[in-house]
Amino acid sequence: MPSFEPKNPDFRAVAAATFAAQRVMHTLGISLLRLEPGEADLSMVYSPELTQQNGFVHAGIITAGLDNACGIAAFSLMPKGSGILTVEFKTNLLAPAKGERFFFRASVIKPGRTLTVCEARAFAEHQGVETLIATMTGTLMAIAPAS
Amino acid sequence: MPSFEPKNPDFRAVAAATFAAQRVMHTLGISLLRLEPGEADLSMVYSPELTQQNGFVHAGIITAGLDNACGIAAFSLMPKGSGILTVEFKTNLLAPAKGERFFFRASVIKPGRTLTVCEARAFAEHQGVETLIATMTGTLMAIAPAS
Amino acid sequence: MPSFEPKNPDFRAVAAATFAAQRVMHTLGISLLRLEPGEADLSMVYSPELTQQNGFVHAGIITAGLDNACGIAAFSLMPKGSGILTVEFKTNLLAPAKGERFFFRASVIKPGRTLTVCEARAFAEHQGVETLIATMTGTLMAIAPAS
Amino acid sequence: MPSFEPKNPDFRAVAAATFAAQRVMHTLGISLLRLEPGEADLSMVYSPELTQQNGFVHAGIITAGLDNACGIAAFSLMPKGSGILTVEFKTNLLAPAKGERFFFRASVIKPGRTLTVCEARAFAEHQGVETLIATMTGTLMAIAPAS
Repeated sequence: MPSFEPKNPDFRAVAAATFAAQRVMHTLGISLLRLEPGEADLSMVYSPELTQQNGFVHAGIITAGLDNACGIAAFSLMPKGSGILTVEFKTNLLAPAKGERFFFRASVIKPGRTLTVCEARAFAEHQGVETLIATMTGTLMAIAPAS
Repeated sequence: MPSFEPKNPDFRAVAAATFAAQRVMHTLGISLLRLEPGEADLSMVYSPELTQQNGFVHAGIITAGLDNACGIAAFSLMPKGSGILTVEFKTNLLAPAKGERFFFRASVIKPGRTLTVCEARAFAEHQGVETLIATMTGTLMAIAPAS
Repeated sequence: MPSFEPKNPDFRAVAAATFAAQRVMHTLGISLLRLEPGEADLSMVYSPELTQQNGFVHAGIITAGLDNACGIAAFSLMPKGSGILTVEFKTNLLAPAKGERFFFRASVIKPGRTLTVCEARAFAEHQGVETLIATMTGTLMAIAPAS
Repeated sequence: MPSFEPKNPDFRAVAAATFAAQRVMHTLGISLLRLEPGEADLSMVYSPELTQQNGFVHAGIITAGLDNACGIAAFSLMPKGSGILTVEFKTNLLAPAKGERFFFRASVIKPGRTLTVCEARAFAEHQGVETLIATMTGTLMAIAPAS
């Protein structure tokens, strides 16, 4: 994995503030675990409020975690004052989202002035064992700071 | 658009029961508006609890609606006793999820014994005007009834 | 389907010249059938040189046709002097690419200054009957003319 | 990376024969470099016959290489007598396909009785330097041997 040089020395504070400004993250019980230039890890606690018909967490919720991890990872490399949008993503669901805790780990694979491509993986922790449950590849777009 | 012959004459009751068994749909305020063989429309009311940093509904929540519409549309064509899994999906986000109400409209484009492919579109209704905000193509898998 | 206003009055000549400059299109036997603002149809004749192990046309070749149809459709709406890049695409393969002729039909679903999103469908014509064999959703990027 | 146990002891011979039976691989100048259980590497020599309007290899050709690498990697884990189909794939294009040689490296991330999910990366070798130019996530399906 390459290591990236952040363009914004305050990237940690800015990313944390943006994360905190997302009310949906609070609603879903998702928190920011780790942030490095081009990498972000989130975690989510199981809640029965987020389940589908078999009692597992719904694929859309897992996708929200993956997308947010990608967004924060990409955002960490953008210049000061940038906004960020998700352009598109693709998720493969590999195993049921069955567990007490979930992790969403994203890394930038190609940063760019306009577009940044990220990959992320979701893991379920069940009785102390982690299983890979989903993958995402996503494209994020920087919105240039108003000049 | 092709019209499909449901294999399960009770598909409406079964699909409605499966939808109702998804607690996450209740949490997100998503309801089933319309169901025909191979087609499903859902709606969702805006809630500030589901927003990202700009006050729009989060892409992951829009994806949850799209995925569920695809799932119900695919499920409506499956034999009695089948279970259903999402294999994968891809979402393009075309405009901010800004509005008072959101619609998720899915249709099967290729039904199959094992795999069914669906397309879905998400619309935001803002001050009476509908805007296309996202698309999904998804693959769903039938879990054969235990014999 | 919306109808689009081309920004470049010479879009037909420019798109046709760009298509002709793609040697791979000649190699694959793909030609431009129809071009309207935001829409492009290509056709390809079957060749045994392009087949996989079952004698059907390889999925990658079908994807090349779909991607090119998306590119031309998107390009038709871009300003004079723009270049174009494919950012990403997603293909679902719905049926074997079995036939004497193949068609790739793309339409823009969201044009943009930087990014344009297209959808395309591939059809096989076999003994006079057309079958939908694959779909694509793709994101294309305009490269601004040098100023 | 997990290491996988092949179900078919003759997987090398079967995969090589299937690869050789794909006439399109010969047409595109793609060869099988390396095969291990759940992993496949292909290489392709640059040809002007495969280029787009800027002289780079066309995205569809890169996708054909990625898809084939995924197919061979997935196929290596399937039981004797299985057939294989690509269900879907998603490609992100990260840099121009500019080089003298190209490599397509795929690994299975989730094998399954029916569906197998693979990831692949394409690299361009230009003047001795390798650059990551594209990624793929793909879903492959085993066709059960006739019994």
